[in-house]
Amino acid sequence: MKFISSPHNATIRLAEQLQRKSKARKKEGLFLVEGKREIQLALDGGFELTQLLICGEVFLESSEFTRDQIEKHINIKESTEVIAVSSEVYEKLAYRSGTEGCIAFAKAKSQQLSSLQLDTNPLILIAESPEKPGNLGALLRTADAAKVDAVIITNSITDLYNPNVIRSSVGCVFTVPVITSSTTETILFLKEQNINLYAATLQASERYDLINYTSSTAIAVGTEATGLSQEMRDAAVQNVIIPMRGAIDSMNVSVSAAILLFEAARQRGF
Amino acid sequence: MKFISSPHNATIRLAEQLQRKSKARKKEGLFLVEGKREIQLALDGGFELTQLLICGEVFLESSEFTRDQIEKHINIKESTEVIAVSSEVYEKLAYRSGTEGCIAFAKAKSQQLSSLQLDTNPLILIAESPEKPGNLGALLRTADAAKVDAVIITNSITDLYNPNVIRSSVGCVFTVPVITSSTTETILFLKEQNINLYAATLQASERYDLINYTSSTAIAVGTEATGLSQEMRDAAVQNVIIPMRGAIDSMNVSVSAAILLFEAARQRGF
Repeated sequence: MKFISSPHNATIRLAEQLQRKSKARKKEGLFLVEGKREIQLALDGGFELTQLLICGEVFLESSEFTRDQIEKHINIKESTEVIAVSSEVYEKLAYRSGTEGCIAFAKAKSQQLSSLQLDTNPLILIAESPEKPGNLGALLRTADAAKVDAVIITNSITDLYNPNVIRSSVGCVFTVPVITSSTTETILFLKEQNINLYAATLQASERYDLINYTSSTAIAVGTEATGLSQEMRDAAVQNVIIPMRGAIDSMNVSVSAAILLFEAARQRGF
Repeated sequence: MKFISSPHNATIRLAEQLQRKSKARKKEGLFLVEGKREIQLALDGGFELTQLLICGEVFLESSEFTRDQIEKHINIKESTEVIAVSSEVYEKLAYRSGTEGCIAFAKAKSQQLSSLQLDTNPLILIAESPEKPGNLGALLRTADAAKVDAVIITNSITDLYNPNVIRSSVGCVFTVPVITSSTTETILFLKEQNINLYAATLQASERYDLINYTSSTAIAVGTEATGLSQEMRDAAVQNVIIPMRGAIDSMNVSVSAAILLFEAARQRGF
């Protein structure tokens, strides 16, 4: 098994680039996944791991280990190369505190609308330009719990494989089919597929709970600051509002999405 | 008008203590509120401001100003002393980035169960030992939007006037009646008031949406890590579950609370 002890090694330098730079992730078509649970979720979600870096002292409390020992903990495929790294190298790469000594290189998946396979009567969440990685991660976590058929991120500012997105989604970025697209193409796709679009806005006149979501449904949420684009609102079958009766007229976008998606799930009998 | 330019001034030193230390907040019965919107919400919520520190350069783009000018922006009472502070002093105190040049000293309110005034058929949110200030703040924001009659925090780890709670609640800590108490006393209070307690757990057999929340209702949520205490679950009329059908079997506590509270609000016709 290969052992890397130098932080200046080319693989480690690439890992650092992938962790820090969206541009590097896009160029290489690779990203990093950290933590046993997240790596397992990526594998379950069909992501291909090219290399798995293991810090023995942290992962197994021993600097000496075999591939078999690793396979007892993480269900890797034959094609994944396992590489031992020193504590020094691992600590340089580890993004989270209290981590588990394992970091994988994973191949990005196609996130194009054309790659989306939908069942009949799908439930889709559309998030227009989520502002922060934490918000995007929280949205994906909500989408996983509601078991939506897909999440479409339009005009995305943050890339999906940003370490903060992975972390705040607790790995749900791997379990939910996620597509990135433009608002215009998304609207066209929904029309072609006969999917009813409901746009959550503060200006809407129809209460969200008075809508029937049992046929093909897409629910669009915008940013906390500016809401949904005019284009998205104009394309909706109906704009809907979550009545807020407190002093503040906004909610966190993952909270709004949860209220809308679980109303749809409730109507569909879960 | 008093002008403070020294960071070593006693008022400024007290402000720093209040910002950093829960113990100081408790001892003095005071806390700090930062930002125009938050200060206005505190005033609207009936909090008494003892002093208002203004950094003229930031608040009005002028180091020279009168009390009248301030009153045009913030609706303070006569009893509130306005104090001008230098940029140096303000920057030392300012907790948030992109702030607005105003920080107020506010008097803490009683958070005891005995001080709680309830209407008929109240809707109450109970949060057992929220782990992080950010979670507590997000819960309060959700509670404001659902217009609950009260939030009861049991076995609280974080104090309510922690700057992170105020910030993440976007001021909702001032707009929602919040009580802190023990689990035991809370259960006793609910029994005395004939309020039905529903406990959200992952072990529950009854789906949350099959419950009728139109009479007096309290909904209890626990921590993401450990859920609700056995004591709370045992005291519930019914334990309820939000069906999660994804790969991950947990949700952020403010998201769970939102799904439950908005189902109750929906049944109550908003």
